[in-house]
Amino acid sequence: MRAHPDVRTELPRDLEDLQHRIAGMDTQEVVDELGRLGDQRRAVAFRLLPKGRAVEVFEDLDPAIQAELVEALRSEATAEIFAALDPDDRASLLDELPAGVAARLLGGLGPDERALTTALLGYPEDSAGRRMSPRVASVRRGTTVSGALDALRRAGDDVETIYTVPVLGPGRVVEGVVSLRRLLVSDPGALVEDVMSPAVTVEATDDQEHAANVVRDGGYVAVPVVDHEHRLLGVLTVDDAMRILEAEDDEDSARVGGSEPLRRPYLTVSVLGLVRARVVWLLLLIVAASLTVGVQSYFEAELDAVVALALFIPLLIGTGGNAGSQAATTVVRALAVGDIRRGDLLRVVGREMLTGLLLGTVLAAVGFGPAAWVAGVQIAQVLAITVVGVCLLATTVGSSIPILARRVGIDPAIVAAPFISTFVDTLGLVIYFSVAKVVLGI
Amino acid sequence: MRAHPDVRTELPRDLEDLQHRIAGMDTQEVVDELGRLGDQRRAVAFRLLPKGRAVEVFEDLDPAIQAELVEALRSEATAEIFAALDPDDRASLLDELPAGVAARLLGGLGPDERALTTALLGYPEDSAGRRMSPRVASVRRGTTVSGALDALRRAGDDVETIYTVPVLGPGRVVEGVVSLRRLLVSDPGALVEDVMSPAVTVEATDDQEHAANVVRDGGYVAVPVVDHEHRLLGVLTVDDAMRILEAEDDEDSARVGGSEPLRRPYLTVSVLGLVRARVVWLLLLIVAASLTVGVQSYFEAELDAVVALALFIPLLIGTGGNAGSQAATTVVRALAVGDIRRGDLLRVVGREMLTGLLLGTVLAAVGFGPAAWVAGVQIAQVLAITVVGVCLLATTVGSSIPILARRVGIDPAIVAAPFISTFVDTLGLVIYFSVAKVVLGI
Repeated sequence: MRAHPDVRTELPRDLEDLQHRIAGMDTQEVVDELGRLGDQRRAVAFRLLPKGRAVEVFEDLDPAIQAELVEALRSEATAEIFAALDPDDRASLLDELPAGVAARLLGGLGPDERALTTALLGYPEDSAGRRMSPRVASVRRGTTVSGALDALRRAGDDVETIYTVPVLGPGRVVEGVVSLRRLLVSDPGALVEDVMSPAVTVEATDDQEHAANVVRDGGYVAVPVVDHEHRLLGVLTVDDAMRILEAEDDEDSARVGGSEPLRRPYLTVSVLGLVRARVVWLLLLIVAASLTVGVQSYFEAELDAVVALALFIPLLIGTGGNAGSQAATTVVRALAVGDIRRGDLLRVVGREMLTGLLLGTVLAAVGFGPAAWVAGVQIAQVLAITVVGVCLLATTVGSSIPILARRVGIDPAIVAAPFISTFVDTLGLVIYFSVAKVVLGI
Repeated sequence: MRAHPDVRTELPRDLEDLQHRIAGMDTQEVVDELGRLGDQRRAVAFRLLPKGRAVEVFEDLDPAIQAELVEALRSEATAEIFAALDPDDRASLLDELPAGVAARLLGGLGPDERALTTALLGYPEDSAGRRMSPRVASVRRGTTVSGALDALRRAGDDVETIYTVPVLGPGRVVEGVVSLRRLLVSDPGALVEDVMSPAVTVEATDDQEHAANVVRDGGYVAVPVVDHEHRLLGVLTVDDAMRILEAEDDEDSARVGGSEPLRRPYLTVSVLGLVRARVVWLLLLIVAASLTVGVQSYFEAELDAVVALALFIPLLIGTGGNAGSQAATTVVRALAVGDIRRGDLLRVVGREMLTGLLLGTVLAAVGFGPAAWVAGVQIAQVLAITVVGVCLLATTVGSSIPILARRVGIDPAIVAAPFISTFVDTLGLVIYFSVAKVVLGI
């Protein structure tokens, strides 16, 4: 456990403490700790790690933080760490780096490693190809079980996983997979094609979230990644699938809440970064919400005539927003995990309309008494009718917009809760004042 | 591929189609398809599956759907399927079943299997112990690599995984783990303790989400589950970890959106089920929102004096709600993935207050011109000051409440967006009217 020589000479007292603390942590704890430090202290703390450890820790950091470290550290050290990464991790890091730094790091690799990495960069962002590991163990049809085990033993640490092994026919076409477990318990003289199972594969151009869902739903350790002709290109492992799903959940969660995903640990994002992730959304939503001002201006005469109507605007608007966001978050989530598909639009909206009608009826029934007591029977009637209309509207809009968004290729989470509530707010006001005009005869 | 004899006799035409379609699907596709059918058709479709297939499919269904199938199918068939499940899957299913059915199924098991299953049921719900597999491969310190490989070969299909093997000292204490991969490439004569790595373990009483995060963050295939004395109890595999995290994400997503999680595929939930998951939340939120009615009544004189103030209420309330839900969803997510901890309260709230102040200032600066044009300079001043106050309030409340909730043991997602926006609505109105009183001199 020797620290890098260039920082050994003079360590301030608190860095010695830090070094001591880090020495007692496991890799994941160091990763967490670095995720909680500011830029400068993080670079210093990272340099305190012994070299082998530094690579391990670096591998587990978020690509955004990796990129900052690369820029903060001296270039020889980073070239070494970069070379030690897996090709798929390298590709993710390169995405985050300025072009100049990326080119320098790529140039420092040997020709084989460079070829592996640039091949990945050729696949679209967010595709399974970008996230697969091209270093994959495979065996040819006709190999015996003992021959396969020998090959895996020789492959050793050069491949990403040896637990799921594609069995290849002519032209590297994947004909099946065999698990290391199956190989181990099978007759050593048997042929791999007699012990293999049908291969569940994903294509390199598939969306990474779809590919990760295949790994999760099937409970696989790894899934072969193939091209259009079903030829083996690489493998997507379960740990990569978990990272992809975590990032997608981060993204959905942020967007449902009306901001851009941070793509890195919360505490490492500057306040300006937080502002940037949110301000455009808030401005857009305000522009959308200015419609409510227009609606109210339009109904100003009614509002003047019965000022009591204004009292219930926030409550009605809040209820519509809540009912809409319930429907939207449910549908966004169901789309993300694959429980509903784009073709289910009518079925889902039908269910949600019925749900909205029932919700509105329950709320109207429960709220009528208190509302009549506070504001009189007539206003209570207006409120009861409006709440049914608003709930029906909210669940209809809240369920249909995300599915329609998915159909036209927009992330459903983007159009979820905040936009839907603003839209429901505006239409809800129209319903409210229209009902009031009729019931109150104003 | 022979269907169960009891349904073979007379199949209506569309069931023959269904049987034909299902025969061409892989297991995951059948699981998806069953997740989209209603109760009755699902039971029929399930009975059309050949027996071996039925068990595979059943294993991958949600526990809630498994429970319905068990109740819909004849008892001999279910007893057989139940016996074929892994103990941890059995425990999850028993949680969903009425006590009588659960007791009958447990009674039908052999003594060993019954003991394994009831041991799991002894751990608290949502603990790692409840979700682990007690059938775990392990080797004793002092075993050679080739001895370990032989043992794993013999263990065969009786254990959950042979890829991560705990190395045990006296009293079944876990001293390290060795991967099958490491065993395969090591010298056959070496001792397992010389090739093992330090064991990352979780305790059986740990929260399941924490345990699953350990598996994900470390990229492990499996993690040993131990008791307080570090003795081996079972193993939590990566596919179980992924299922746990999916369920927790479902829960967070639903609660952030203001409803209860459905805990099963969306299309299998009845409309009444959807209503049940949402209605209590909506009612609670309406009760909370009735505070806004009180606030407006309190400021009725000001509202009468300057009716134009009412025009901007939905817009201000919407903005506060959006800013609060941005902060809340960000913090809830960061808590869920472990990026921030309970002790970070002050640090997080400080950052969020600054963020709110900056957001409010930007919105005020951008909005002042248009507001002055629509409603005059004085009202624009009121709006500008209010929007800064509302944003500051929203980010403060939105960030602190989830962390405080976690501290007192409440799911942070429960108190997230909807409750926070209702709270912010009410206080926002107070700010609005107070600022208006001062600036407009009413």
